[in-house]
Amino acid sequence: MAVYTDVAVEDLEAFLADYDIGNLLSYKGIAEGVENTNFLLHTSSGYFILTLYEKRVATHDLPFFLGLMEHLHARGLNCPQPVRNRAGEALGKLAKRPAAMVTFLEGVWPRRPSVAHCAGVGAALAKLHLAGSDFPMKRKNALSVAGWSGLYQQASARADNVHRNLSGTIAAELAYCEKHWPENLPHGIIHADLFPDNVFFLGSELSGVIDFYFACTDTLAYDVAICLNAWCFETDHSFNVTKGRALLQGYEKVRPLSAQERAALPLLCRGAALRFLLTRLVDWLSVPAGALVRPKDPIEYYRKLRFHQAAASVRDYGIEE
Amino acid sequence: MAVYTDVAVEDLEAFLADYDIGNLLSYKGIAEGVENTNFLLHTSSGYFILTLYEKRVATHDLPFFLGLMEHLHARGLNCPQPVRNRAGEALGKLAKRPAAMVTFLEGVWPRRPSVAHCAGVGAALAKLHLAGSDFPMKRKNALSVAGWSGLYQQASARADNVHRNLSGTIAAELAYCEKHWPENLPHGIIHADLFPDNVFFLGSELSGVIDFYFACTDTLAYDVAICLNAWCFETDHSFNVTKGRALLQGYEKVRPLSAQERAALPLLCRGAALRFLLTRLVDWLSVPAGALVRPKDPIEYYRKLRFHQAAASVRDYGIEE
Repeated sequence: MAVYTDVAVEDLEAFLADYDIGNLLSYKGIAEGVENTNFLLHTSSGYFILTLYEKRVATHDLPFFLGLMEHLHARGLNCPQPVRNRAGEALGKLAKRPAAMVTFLEGVWPRRPSVAHCAGVGAALAKLHLAGSDFPMKRKNALSVAGWSGLYQQASARADNVHRNLSGTIAAELAYCEKHWPENLPHGIIHADLFPDNVFFLGSELSGVIDFYFACTDTLAYDVAICLNAWCFETDHSFNVTKGRALLQGYEKVRPLSAQERAALPLLCRGAALRFLLTRLVDWLSVPAGALVRPKDPIEYYRKLRFHQAAASVRDYGIEE
Repeated sequence: MAVYTDVAVEDLEAFLADYDIGNLLSYKGIAEGVENTNFLLHTSSGYFILTLYEKRVATHDLPFFLGLMEHLHARGLNCPQPVRNRAGEALGKLAKRPAAMVTFLEGVWPRRPSVAHCAGVGAALAKLHLAGSDFPMKRKNALSVAGWSGLYQQASARADNVHRNLSGTIAAELAYCEKHWPENLPHGIIHADLFPDNVFFLGSELSGVIDFYFACTDTLAYDVAICLNAWCFETDHSFNVTKGRALLQGYEKVRPLSAQERAALPLLCRGAALRFLLTRLVDWLSVPAGALVRPKDPIEYYRKLRFHQAAASVRDYGIEE
């Protein structure tokens, strides 16, 4: 699914000769991430993930992503640590592609997240926000409110083939979000894609956060809203308020939300649901007939959006106003 | 490319509860093998490969393959060792598929095999043949001489679209092999698919032989012929006699070939080239237009066949008659 580029051992050994990580013992292409080629490397000094960046990742953003991982790791977040070569570079070139190595993190991601997992991810997200507060680089969020109308235009003509009156629903929601979107809440580094497959656990203990390739500078509480969408709904699309409370309380033990952030949360959740509804819809409509890969269902996020539209306040997510 | 079936951590942990291999620390789907789903597992007691057998592997053959690996490993061959669960079973069930775990082998496979690699694979093949000599189970080789006419019939009508007069060339070669194929050479367990991607090295030392899913009972020297085809040609399809000599001498240090086996080697090499020409041709012709996966080039084996047809004796492969 995810290995696009084979790397000959002879080329890999030449690449590794610039690093201080011992001798190569084995490497396997792994099915992780959908945008890049990833290998799990074992050398005489440990385990590493080697990533070759395929064309969907903009090369000019790589110093931001690698710098951010290094910054967050140095501040104690359990995230991959980029490995620098002897010239001090974290970004190299292999098989004609930009390439970087990071340390390997143990742990498994939960397919059926529990309340304890939700508490863990809430706390980790808040730690990430605090650890990122003095990161000097910035990156605009292309998938925040200003980017949604462009996605809608790509999908609007055929949206109603996917679900009755989907185009009209999205148009109305888009207008609502654009009109009311809060601009003055605390900003900083957000992960922007902290779904269960990007969070590792050993038992109920969170052991690592990975995949910073959507990270950017945006409203911190919007990142909380993305997590509420990604972690706290059941497979029947019902919202589990116990999980919501666990996630929010886990977050607030590390970084309490302001009254303004709490008040904005239902709206931020609507926006987050709309963002994933739109990107999934565009992917869904771009898949050729008969393709083997089935994209993720956009209607899951349509149903989540319906929940958020009906929410009166942050109480509906499990905590007091 | 190779991961067909995702396994939820919750299901994997339930599966592992029947084994004595400690706690799960991580697992990654790996792009290895094209027939099955493979995961690299790390538990508190080590590293393992977990294989889910997809439909292309006949379930009734699995006890043969697993029993053979266990037998060969017990006799000192560097090959994966099946892990039995507490009930003594090597074959279980996971995600509705037959599933087995084997020990992980370090090493990397050479994309550009050297003379030293060829010597190593020759010796390992001979060790495999000796270690298999008292394995009690049998499995017919469906891809030996009796199976080739069936493959030819699938491909003959369109073979000339792939290469000028390919159908006629194959028909003549098939008739020749069927008429002259040696039936009285030493038989036993053969690997039958010992290509470079199935042999791991650490430096120039062979560290492991994997993928026994074509293993069967057949002429031992035919396995040598498969290896000469797979390891000793350069990318321009020229035969490298130094590599041939290294492979054959490596083999003979462990198991000397008889005069009859030596005499039959050019014919066995023709048959081995024909076998891979035929299976690759069938795959090539069965790929739909516009498919993303490009099958292996059958013409590579057509050119190898031409070399073998011109060979006068085993001297052309680098050793004395």
